[in-house]
Amino acid sequence: MWLMRQAGRYLPEYRAVRAQAGDFISLCTTPPLAAEVTLQPLRRYGMDAAILFSDILMLPWALGQGLRFSEGEGPVLPPLRTSEDLAKLDRSKLQGAIEPILDTVRRVRAEVGDATLIGFAGAPFTVACYMVEGHGSKEFAAVRTMAYRDPVMFGALIDLLVETTVEYLAAQIDAGAETVMLFDSWAGVLPPALFRAYVIAPAIRIVNALHARYPHVPVIGFPRGGGLLIREYADRTGVQGLGIDTTVDPVLAAALVPLNVALQGNLDPMLLEAGGPAMEEHTHSILDAMRGRPFIFNLGHGIVPSTSPEHVAELVRIVRAA
Amino acid sequence: MWLMRQAGRYLPEYRAVRAQAGDFISLCTTPPLAAEVTLQPLRRYGMDAAILFSDILMLPWALGQGLRFSEGEGPVLPPLRTSEDLAKLDRSKLQGAIEPILDTVRRVRAEVGDATLIGFAGAPFTVACYMVEGHGSKEFAAVRTMAYRDPVMFGALIDLLVETTVEYLAAQIDAGAETVMLFDSWAGVLPPALFRAYVIAPAIRIVNALHARYPHVPVIGFPRGGGLLIREYADRTGVQGLGIDTTVDPVLAAALVPLNVALQGNLDPMLLEAGGPAMEEHTHSILDAMRGRPFIFNLGHGIVPSTSPEHVAELVRIVRAA
Repeated sequence: MWLMRQAGRYLPEYRAVRAQAGDFISLCTTPPLAAEVTLQPLRRYGMDAAILFSDILMLPWALGQGLRFSEGEGPVLPPLRTSEDLAKLDRSKLQGAIEPILDTVRRVRAEVGDATLIGFAGAPFTVACYMVEGHGSKEFAAVRTMAYRDPVMFGALIDLLVETTVEYLAAQIDAGAETVMLFDSWAGVLPPALFRAYVIAPAIRIVNALHARYPHVPVIGFPRGGGLLIREYADRTGVQGLGIDTTVDPVLAAALVPLNVALQGNLDPMLLEAGGPAMEEHTHSILDAMRGRPFIFNLGHGIVPSTSPEHVAELVRIVRAA
Repeated sequence: MWLMRQAGRYLPEYRAVRAQAGDFISLCTTPPLAAEVTLQPLRRYGMDAAILFSDILMLPWALGQGLRFSEGEGPVLPPLRTSEDLAKLDRSKLQGAIEPILDTVRRVRAEVGDATLIGFAGAPFTVACYMVEGHGSKEFAAVRTMAYRDPVMFGALIDLLVETTVEYLAAQIDAGAETVMLFDSWAGVLPPALFRAYVIAPAIRIVNALHARYPHVPVIGFPRGGGLLIREYADRTGVQGLGIDTTVDPVLAAALVPLNVALQGNLDPMLLEAGGPAMEEHTHSILDAMRGRPFIFNLGHGIVPSTSPEHVAELVRIVRAA
């Protein structure tokens, strides 16, 4: 078991390091601090895995697209809308820019003990959402408009992201990541034809490229909001693990997804925030649905900052005792 | 065929009436103007159905919860968080408050000719989202927290909304609505247990109550984001029609949902906005998937304001010619 955003603002020890780092990007690019916050939830709760503390937008940042995190507003980037904007991205900067992130991976690996170190990247579509829109959104309309109006340019952006994501994840594996996860947080805004073209097809390419070089490193895909298409994603992409979001019925997922793909999920983070008997009951119903199959207990989405650290401790006790 | 938000800001004739009405609530509660905008897309495009021009939040408005629409921000309500807030809602106000809306229904019915007049309401969960949160949100965390922490109070809110929604839709039918639609726009933020409790169960109660009084009036349910659970929704609620959102694969939906339930959907509104060959191709693939079964062509979500009215005309030509 581990929990998405297990290193984060709900932890007082995280907030202390965050205050020391200054802004969020500095925290991600200062190896001793990023390694420290990565390890905090392992020390406090004995989680089975550490996930690199970073952000899915560190890839466009490393390609030279401006990025800042404004308090309360989330990430802000100069929107990429034209082929001139696309041409400005500079792949030659990537390896140098990600060096502090790789250093973090090495530091964590040296201290992680028996726990698994998970590296990650945003999946190309989700990263493109922010790059094109320039910020978070409910619907990411601009990115869908680009995909429909200018499939050649959008395809070129996705291609660039597929290739650099492979490069980025391979570098994390070389630095010590034992599993990698691909977060497609906004896969659920796409109609099925685009889901196949921009979620499933890029995942196939990334998984194939990684497996060719690292046949024993599992890849976990997380097509959030994939709904009826999660089985097709599991069948076609070649992932070893499939993250399921909060909305997915674990009984249906266990029936749909073949046993050679581990499921990972999917307690509602708001249940962890609420705590108490409702959290315990839902946790047991997820564990019951997954009995007899490879399964990684997790949330269906990240921990919210208002969560009590005590509720996380209680959840760990419930899962460990089951 | 008809299109969600077919009466709306993308139409110059709508913007002219809207300017005359002043604010949005005045437009919804001034019968000659609301009837006029309801009928505009029928005149321009010969749609098969008119949907009452109104808003899903007119029900809480009619129960006395304050409501305003601020430019760019969407709806704003004083958030309902305590049982005192809940007790302040006043069912005795409902019939009086909705009278202008019913007058709109009567006016449209007198002029609609052979087209079908569709009445509608927000489904209890989605209406509760706005009532509890106080505004739109990506995740509607406050409403889920209330459902987990205080299921008794949240249940009481849902019960009130089930009963008043039945009253509201029955009044629309009495005034001339020939079909009614239940919009559960935020069903997709719920984990499966809550989807069953707060989306499916209320829909069962509403459909049963309406069918007992109006056995020949079809109900269309639209659990947006229902994903893997749309089949269960179709099987258990007793709806005659099921709206499918943009993310649903029409081929899978046609295979999953029994033939006695008409499907309605699901072209991406951003494809209508983009127009051109991509729109035509996706439209044909939806129509092909639905061949041989009861089907209402529509979008998967509402028309966006930046849509060209010419693209809508082109879409109507494509669907009519198929």
